[in-house]
Amino acid sequence: MTEDEHGRRQCDSAVSLAFSVLGKRWNGMIVDALGGGAMSFVELRRGVEGISDAVLSDRLAELAEAGLVVREVAPGPPVAVSYRLTPAGEGLLPILTQLGEWASASLSPAPR
Amino acid sequence: MTEDEHGRRQCDSAVSLAFSVLGKRWNGMIVDALGGGAMSFVELRRGVEGISDAVLSDRLAELAEAGLVVREVAPGPPVAVSYRLTPAGEGLLPILTQLGEWASASLSPAPR
Repeated sequence: MTEDEHGRRQCDSAVSLAFSVLGKRWNGMIVDALGGGAMSFVELRRGVEGISDAVLSDRLAELAEAGLVVREVAPGPPVAVSYRLTPAGEGLLPILTQLGEWASASLSPAPR
Repeated sequence: MTEDEHGRRQCDSAVSLAFSVLGKRWNGMIVDALGGGAMSFVELRRGVEGISDAVLSDRLAELAEAGLVVREVAPGPPVAVSYRLTPAGEGLLPILTQLGEWASASLSPAPR
């Protein structure tokens, strides 16, 4: 929360920026799943329960564009593609842990 | 990130729970805007740039259902309706500050 030039209270622009990425379903969960190291597409789909192939593919492209994830191709055969966090993505991990602790203490686990 | 019974790495269930609320556009920004105290609907709409009346109304109902925001009616005339954070909602504020700091350091401000 910040105040603008008229003294009105506003959502902080840095918080808005954070939610331009995290305020989309799955993005935070994908970053969290990658917290243990590089994963293949199939491993990642299993690690983010409920996501479809098409949506995971879209979200990985977005996270790569935002500079949080990199796609790596190991020349084969067989060619192996994996995804891992950049340092910027890794910087989010301790905050995700705190968000999880807050959610466990503050939110009801029943799906709404 | 946690491991399931097969040793697969998964998005932590508490992090999933956090993003059941925060992984929707605007919710984190509304909580942040309310960080300075109770606001009327009109003040809040001004404080969350770009949100429409209909979407703000929906999101406030969701945040109330999740137990993060309460709607208060002061008997009039004129009747005054305001919205404020619950203790659970206030618990999110320091984490939002960290998310903002992370975003400022790690994300490009250009809209994607």
